[in-house]
Amino acid sequence: MSIYRKSGFKKDGNTILQEVASKSQLKEGKDAVRGVLREIYRFGTIGTKSLARKLFLPIPTVAAIRKELEKIGFIERLKKGAILTELGVDFVNLELQINYFQNLLCKECDGTTIELPDDADSIIPKLRDFTDLRPTPQTEIDQAFGKPITALCRALLMLQNDDLEGREVLLLGDDDFTSLAIALLGTLTKITVIDIDKRLLDVISQIAKENNFDIVCIHADLRKPISNKLVGKFDTVLTDPPYTISGLKLFLSRCLQALKPELGRKVYLAYAHRAPNDLLDVQKVIQEHGLVIQQMLPGFNLYEGAEMHGNTTFIAKLLTTDLSKAQIIDEFYEKIYTGEFSPTLRIYKCSKNHEIQIGKNEKIKTIEELKEMGCPVCGSKDKFLRIKREKI
Amino acid sequence: MSIYRKSGFKKDGNTILQEVASKSQLKEGKDAVRGVLREIYRFGTIGTKSLARKLFLPIPTVAAIRKELEKIGFIERLKKGAILTELGVDFVNLELQINYFQNLLCKECDGTTIELPDDADSIIPKLRDFTDLRPTPQTEIDQAFGKPITALCRALLMLQNDDLEGREVLLLGDDDFTSLAIALLGTLTKITVIDIDKRLLDVISQIAKENNFDIVCIHADLRKPISNKLVGKFDTVLTDPPYTISGLKLFLSRCLQALKPELGRKVYLAYAHRAPNDLLDVQKVIQEHGLVIQQMLPGFNLYEGAEMHGNTTFIAKLLTTDLSKAQIIDEFYEKIYTGEFSPTLRIYKCSKNHEIQIGKNEKIKTIEELKEMGCPVCGSKDKFLRIKREKI
Repeated sequence: MSIYRKSGFKKDGNTILQEVASKSQLKEGKDAVRGVLREIYRFGTIGTKSLARKLFLPIPTVAAIRKELEKIGFIERLKKGAILTELGVDFVNLELQINYFQNLLCKECDGTTIELPDDADSIIPKLRDFTDLRPTPQTEIDQAFGKPITALCRALLMLQNDDLEGREVLLLGDDDFTSLAIALLGTLTKITVIDIDKRLLDVISQIAKENNFDIVCIHADLRKPISNKLVGKFDTVLTDPPYTISGLKLFLSRCLQALKPELGRKVYLAYAHRAPNDLLDVQKVIQEHGLVIQQMLPGFNLYEGAEMHGNTTFIAKLLTTDLSKAQIIDEFYEKIYTGEFSPTLRIYKCSKNHEIQIGKNEKIKTIEELKEMGCPVCGSKDKFLRIKREKI
Repeated sequence: MSIYRKSGFKKDGNTILQEVASKSQLKEGKDAVRGVLREIYRFGTIGTKSLARKLFLPIPTVAAIRKELEKIGFIERLKKGAILTELGVDFVNLELQINYFQNLLCKECDGTTIELPDDADSIIPKLRDFTDLRPTPQTEIDQAFGKPITALCRALLMLQNDDLEGREVLLLGDDDFTSLAIALLGTLTKITVIDIDKRLLDVISQIAKENNFDIVCIHADLRKPISNKLVGKFDTVLTDPPYTISGLKLFLSRCLQALKPELGRKVYLAYAHRAPNDLLDVQKVIQEHGLVIQQMLPGFNLYEGAEMHGNTTFIAKLLTTDLSKAQIIDEFYEKIYTGEFSPTLRIYKCSKNHEIQIGKNEKIKTIEELKEMGCPVCGSKDKFLRIKREKI
């Protein structure tokens, strides 16, 4: 008789998973609970962040599951992360019938399908030098910086798919510096970057100038119509829009305006992994724009930030069809950023322990502003520590 | 001045590509022409079949493009395949600005994202022994046998995605013997196979018996409703349906009937690569069933047959949502097989040179029938050689 059954548990595996899923209020369903148990079983001690990244789940989701699994004695927390108890191992083995250990994700490409070229060893450090120059991310406008390897893999994916050479390529937002990764490949590509953040554009322009890269930088807020001279000009667009439905609609609409009105132009879309029902909403928007998915790679993009999303998102290669058309949006001042949908109030402490409230409705709206202004009480700009964060 | 311009060509690269595309009546647009030139440029002499497989294009499409490119002197045909002329190289380099040589598709996994496990070397020969026992494919019902490595990679993809262990798995049609690949992995998986072809089921049953595999084989025509005892029973379904819209609708509807009515159940769908407009129709059907794409890998499936489709198709991992529902189809006798949509008349010769017509409206409808009956004139069953094939 199994330890699980001996311990008085009478319910079968799926019922237990379902109960944990309900208690954790999971949009992802009971397989997310199973996934957490399976990853811990396969990889031993593992932290919440790593779990979230491997399972393509938001960190709060994983934290909630972990907490419920602790309550019923399936896992315990060590310093290094969560580990299965004897009861947990027994449950995984005998009730869920999981006992395969090997990780089958290709170690060479890590699921990106891309092989790094011979000169990657010289490109990556250069790209890292570039990305080191990025200013602090503005989380208010959903900035989360992609890792240099991700910028490179995106450029290589586009190159492998024949979407770079001799092409007009647009980066619709480029806090990930994909433009510079493309430039480093040395292909004959005309690169244009549009961003709302002038700081980023200044860095990209400066680097382009110093390195003789052919990159045109344009400062624009996509909520306003794009300039006429950019309409119908591009073969390929890459965008990593705000992960909201309105943000997606706005950015895809601008993508379609910018693309040549021809069959088979490409949109590379980076977007957060979503639970099935939410992903359906995303794909409805894609289809409403007459775009079609030709390739979709979960876990392709890795970020230094975006912890909310387990530091990773998918990439999808979309193609225009005869039904593609921009839903022309003249001016758009609805909410598009995630922070606008679920605003938070954050309390920071300065180095002299003064508490400062930051939020949409506060005097100081972002951590970036606070760092620039300094503490309103003592003026100190030293260090700010976040001590609380709550939804308004 | 380039050879291309010297030769009197005045049009720019895109115009030429567009003209070739129009003359070849391409659904895929001008990038397919570019793709053919680029592959020949990068890989040297290459045959039509290899081109089709690499570019995910139908063989007749590639053949048509190649013919047009020969006419304008960009390529010439050697015994081993097509090669660029000096003019062609010049056009590719200077007009299309293509000069990157390296193939960036991961050589380890070949774009499947899957790493073969340690025991693959012992599994593959066993699987090949099994697939060698398959009877001749019945092309009338769109059979085209997957390669053993594809059956294995499908099984591994499902395992990696946690869709095998402790799961009820259904193969909705299994001329690829994926059921046996799953069984060889040794996971605790309940496998059910439904197929219309009793010959295949007999082979699978026999192998299962000899190897103590737990596989339930059910003979059924999916155009009839599936048996009640199979409804709502499965966690995972894999299907490689007829590549027609009605075939897709029918098979997806049966998938949804067979799956547990829970969020996040999986459908692994193998389907032919399609030009953008046709792919949109495919994805509309997927969305109409409330299914969502979570992963999509072009070129994942390789076939011994399916030459029409360049011997390769994509795989998509679909998830059920709260909107998933089978469009209940009681009995369905509309056309679903490709041959029903574009029927062909084929003429064969027996070993004594008697000509025999085969086709939907003929006395003998399939090559399988002919082989069983023998030549209607002399009764010879020796060898039949196809000498003509035309659309009716």
